[in-house]
Formats: sequence, C-alpha cells, structure tokens
Amino acid sequence: MSVTAPQGFAAAGVASGIKASGRLDLAVVANLGPRFAAAGVFTRNRVVAAPVRWSREAVANGQLRAVVLNSGGANACTGQPGLTDAQAMAGATAAALGMEAGDVAVCSTGLIGTRLPMTEVTSGIGRACVQLAATGGEAAATAIMTTDTVIKQSAHQDGGWTIGGMAKGAGMLAPGLATMLVVLTTDASLEPSALELALREATRTSFERADADGCMSTNDTVLLLASGASGVVPSQEEFTAALGGVCQDLARQLIADAEGANHEIAIEVVGAATVRDAEVVGREVARSNLFKCAIFGADPNWGRVLSAVGVTDAVFDADQLDVSFNGVQVCRGGGIGEPRDLVDLSGRQVHVLIDLHAGDATATILTTDLTYGYVKENAEYSS
Amino acid sequence: MSVTAPQGFAAAGVASGIKASGRLDLAVVANLGPRFAAAGVFTRNRVVAAPVRWSREAVANGQLRAVVLNSGGANACTGQPGLTDAQAMAGATAAALGMEAGDVAVCSTGLIGTRLPMTEVTSGIGRACVQLAATGGEAAATAIMTTDTVIKQSAHQDGGWTIGGMAKGAGMLAPGLATMLVVLTTDASLEPSALELALREATRTSFERADADGCMSTNDTVLLLASGASGVVPSQEEFTAALGGVCQDLARQLIADAEGANHEIAIEVVGAATVRDAEVVGREVARSNLFKCAIFGADPNWGRVLSAVGVTDAVFDADQLDVSFNGVQVCRGGGIGEPRDLVDLSGRQVHVLIDLHAGDATATILTTDLTYGYVKENAEYSS
Repeated sequence: MSVTAPQGFAAAGVASGIKASGRLDLAVVANLGPRFAAAGVFTRNRVVAAPVRWSREAVANGQLRAVVLNSGGANACTGQPGLTDAQAMAGATAAALGMEAGDVAVCSTGLIGTRLPMTEVTSGIGRACVQLAATGGEAAATAIMTTDTVIKQSAHQDGGWTIGGMAKGAGMLAPGLATMLVVLTTDASLEPSALELALREATRTSFERADADGCMSTNDTVLLLASGASGVVPSQEEFTAALGGVCQDLARQLIADAEGANHEIAIEVVGAATVRDAEVVGREVARSNLFKCAIFGADPNWGRVLSAVGVTDAVFDADQLDVSFNGVQVCRGGGIGEPRDLVDLSGRQVHVLIDLHAGDATATILTTDLTYGYVKENAEYSS
Repeated sequence: MSVTAPQGFAAAGVASGIKASGRLDLAVVANLGPRFAAAGVFTRNRVVAAPVRWSREAVANGQLRAVVLNSGGANACTGQPGLTDAQAMAGATAAALGMEAGDVAVCSTGLIGTRLPMTEVTSGIGRACVQLAATGGEAAATAIMTTDTVIKQSAHQDGGWTIGGMAKGAGMLAPGLATMLVVLTTDASLEPSALELALREATRTSFERADADGCMSTNDTVLLLASGASGVVPSQEEFTAALGGVCQDLARQLIADAEGANHEIAIEVVGAATVRDAEVVGREVARSNLFKCAIFGADPNWGRVLSAVGVTDAVFDADQLDVSFNGVQVCRGGGIGEPRDLVDLSGRQVHVLIDLHAGDATATILTTDLTYGYVKENAEYSS
C-alpha cells in the first residue's frame, strides 16, 4: 500500500529540523533497479518553484534513480539561491547513494518565499539515505504532510507487477495544486515513453479532475518511477488503466482530506457534447464559492449550479438543463423540479448530477464545500 | 444623491408583500421626459432570468419610460411562467402610468428558481405608481436591497446637467453579479447611441472591475435613462467621464458592503503590456481564495499573489515581478523583498500593487477578503 509496495524500491522519512515541531519533514524514495525509467507531470503555473525547475530537467531524459522531498518550505520565489538549494538537495542525495545529481528529482512543499535551512536539510538527507528500506514507504508518506491530517497511499497488484503511490495535498487543483506532490512507483518493465503516455492519461482523469479551491500551486509534481524488477511487461492499456485507478484513489483521498472540508462533492456532468465540455462545466461549478457555501449549509441550491454552468462556453440550451442532488431532480428543463426539501445533504458525500442534454460525453469533478474551517486554515496558516 | 437627483425623474419604493419581513421590496423609477432615451448592460451569463430577457428586448430600441424592480425573488430559472410574470410586471406598470409595456424594463433580485407572488407584486406596482415623486429616490434604493446593509446612491452635477444612480449587490462580479442591479438617470440631452457608448465605457472601468466572489449572476442589469429635461447637451467625453465617476463610486460602495467583507482590497496592476493583461492579472488575484483568506488573516502573503499571477496568460517574466502590500515591497524581482512584518493589514483598506514590468498599461480591480461572515451568509441565506 505504499511507494515501496513494488519490488525494487526503498524509502525513508526523517525529521531534519525544517519543521520547528520536530515532525518528519524529509523523505527519500530510491529506485534500486534494474531499470530506471521515469516520467513526470508538473504544475502549469508560470511561476514555478526551484525544485520544479530542477525536476523537469532531471526527468527530461526519461530516467530517475531517486526522489528527495521535503515539507516545511516550498523553495518557491527564492531566485537563483533557491535553484542552488534545489540542486544541492539532489547533489547530497546522489552523493549518499552513489549516483549523479541529474538522476535525482526534488520536490518541496510549504511556505512560498522563504529559503530552506540547508544545513539541516543536507544532514537530514544523509540520515534518510542511510535508513532507506523496503519498509520505509509509510515514513516517507508521513514526511511530506503539511496541513494533511492523514497520510495518503495506494497500491495496485496485478499479474506479477505492482504499482504503489503516495501523495500529499490539501488545498489544491488540476496538477496545479497547493501543493500536491505525488510519487508513483512500479516494478513493471516499461519504456519511458510508455510511462509518459500512461501518466498523462492517468492524471487527466484523476488529479486534473480534483479541485478543492481553484488555486494552482507553484510546486505541484507527479512523478512515476519504474524499476522493471518484476520482469513483467504489461500492455499499455492494462498499465494505464491500473495507474489511473491508483491516481483516482489518491485524488479521492486528497479531496477527502482537503482543508476544512465538511462535504466531499462529486459533480458528475453527463450529456455533454465533448469530454472537455463536461470537464469545463464540472470545474466551473466546483469553483463557485456560492455553490460551495450552499453545500456547507446543506442547501441544494440548484440556482447557483445553473449560474455557474451559464458562464461556460459548453454546448447546452438553458431550457434543457437538469440538476439532481443526491438523486433528487430539483431542476428539470432549466426550471423548477422536485421540491428542495426532499434532498438530504446531512451526510458527508454529495452527488450532483448535471445533464446538459447535448451529447454523450461525461466527466466527474471532485471538490469540497467552503467552510469556516477552510477560511480558518488559510487565514491562520501561511503557505 | 439619488435617481431622482436629475430633473424629469420620479421614484417610489413600497412593501408589496414579497418579503415576509414586511420590508420595502418593490420600486418604480419613471422618466417624465421630455425625452426617453435609454441604454442597458446585462449579465453575460448564458442562464438569464426572465426579467433580463424582457428588459434586453425593451431597451433594444433605445427607449425606456420606466423601470420596475423587486427584491425578494430573482424570477430566474422559472421557465415560460416566469417570462409571463416579468411581462405582467411591465404591463401593470405601463397601465398605471399610461405607457406601453415595451417602454418598461424589469429587474428582479433574490432566490433563483421560485415564482414571484404576482398578486402582491401587481398590487404593489399600483401603489408604487401612485406614490411616484421626485423625493422617492431613497425609498426606491431601499426597496431593492437584499443582503445589502446600506443603500447605495450616487450623483454628479455639472454645468447644468446631473447624473443620479442607485445600486444593490452583495456578492458580485463584472456585470455578472449576484445580483447587481443599477439604475442610472440623467437630465442631459443625449441620443441612445451616445448613452450606449458612455454606459459601456463607464461599466468597463467600474462594475467590470469589481469582483467580490467571482460568481456571475443570472440577473445583473445596469440601466441608464435620459430625460433631456436640462436641455443641455454635454460632450461625449464629458458625459462618459462623469458617468464613469458615478459608476466607480457605486462600485466602491458595492464592494464596501460585500457579504461578510472585513477588508476592502484594491489590486492595482501596473507595468502591463495591455489593459486587458492588467485586468486579467487583477481578476485572477481577486478570485484566489487563498489570497482572500490571507488578507482576512492580515497576512501579506505575496506567494499566493504570485501563484495567481502565474496561471494567467499575461505578458510577464516571473523573475521580474514586484508586489507591494500597503506600500511595502515584500516581493522584488520574483523573490524575497522587504520583511513581511513591516506590512500593516490591520485597517479595512488594503492596497496591493503588482508591477509586471512588461509595459505601461494599468488597471485596478476591487475585491474583498474571504471571511467567516461570507461563508455564514452564503451557507445560511439561499439566493
């Protein structure tokens, strides 16, 4: 159930001293081989943190041997000194493990605009590398938490090969989260190009469809490392489907633990002309603060859903829109449907179904409600 | 200081019984002539309320003699019956005042997806039309309030002609508010085409730059009626500038009274390649929940500003961005500037200055912070 579930991986998490609390704050995940294929997906934000700049370069040749991650500081908007720090983190990891700095990806999460305490970080990396073990997945997953309240791990086993994964992220969005870090591992034997293809497709239908607060981070990173240790070569379709399942499981865990959330909301858009239309409509509703507050108030406010749908350029006729909350069709044909008081929003899970009556395409976007807790965490916690 | 400040206008506000509280909920503004030129700007939401559909048609010929407005119900997503109700409101007003229904615009605000109590509305219109007076501006401005805590009025007097205005709106955005209703009046003598031109320009730099929560309403309407009663014909430039001033004053009042706001935030973007770039950057920051929560927490979190800037397609180099909070440049060249603790965000007014270093264009977007009060109002109040 962790990044060390597949053969050929070791991990560790240590308390390096970045966090004043003394909690675990530094993780290393190492690929022991025999193969070192890798792929990555990064934030689309144009303001990118130093570790993202470094890791994009590192994975460009389709190969990684390790990932070093820290919480407690994002190393974003730190200029040339920040880039030097990211490079030093890769270098320290590479030195300890006997590889090149260019084989090591770097991920950071925490406050933007402050330098990392590099003495502590470097010494922490040394200790983590010594502790690397096949049992270290959980410690690594713990060390990347910020405002996360639980660790997020997933795994999939199938026909002799395995996928493992860990994630952190609280406020977040479309790999472009605030901050979402994900490390995926597999012992399947695949070429970098196959990993890249599978990773893009898997993130498109998972992390790209999870949107807690519409804010895109400077640090978001999803990395996939393949050791080939199982010796098995799954088909592209088979591997992509399995990877998609692991990513969807992690995305669901991220939304379930989003900052201050009282409700987990699945916005299912059906009858769309295209998948892109379905995604656009779902995202617009997921980003409506009025809608999100209504769900917090257990109010099946379909007017706010229609208002959000109406600002998109998706194909639809306003007089054809249907909206259901938890199975009750409160809006029919763009107008009044079943009585609102038939809807029960007292539970944590909310299902909003929007039928555009414009085609056969569909997509589900995951989001959360907007609560006092969200405001509190983001007013009192600097990130 | 009201819609009846210019010569040739009368107004009234009555309690028709739409609101269970017994508060004023229905207003009529009548143009007594001698001219009846008019222009309108409406929500760009594709889901539009019945009164918007009606009023767009009514003003299409550049002429209006009256506006009837109600709070307590948006008459949105009410299908054909809702359109019939909107038409009936225009018809009742026209009958009472001896004009054609097509000369009367209709504005509604309140909950989406419920019908208006037409018996009460019709009788209220009759009473309002009897009470029409040059002193009725304040009652009319009061009758259109929903969660507004104060009435919003403005006026401008210049060289023999006057502009007056009233507005309501709490959560809101770029004429696309939730719900923003504005009626502007003038006794200047101008053609409908001149009014249209002036109104588009004035809203572009006022209401279009006020964004409390990023949500666009189904009902937003800005109407401008000209009686020509002063006999004065101002120049286009003169009139547009004056109208812009009145609209900016009303926009500022709307933001100051936005739901739950603790801070009024002016986001000034300078050094942009184009005005559109400046607006896009300002709006993206204004819509960042993380930024808005930080301001509520009195945290000059420039990292969240840069994160928001980074998702736009505006021209900028991430290593050139400067950000100041209330005069302290906390971010310089995309990195760490002055210490955060030099910034004082304890006051209600917050000025965020973003320099893109990409040109000479500038725009200021007005917004508010995201507070417990916002969540409370929008979780407990259906709209």
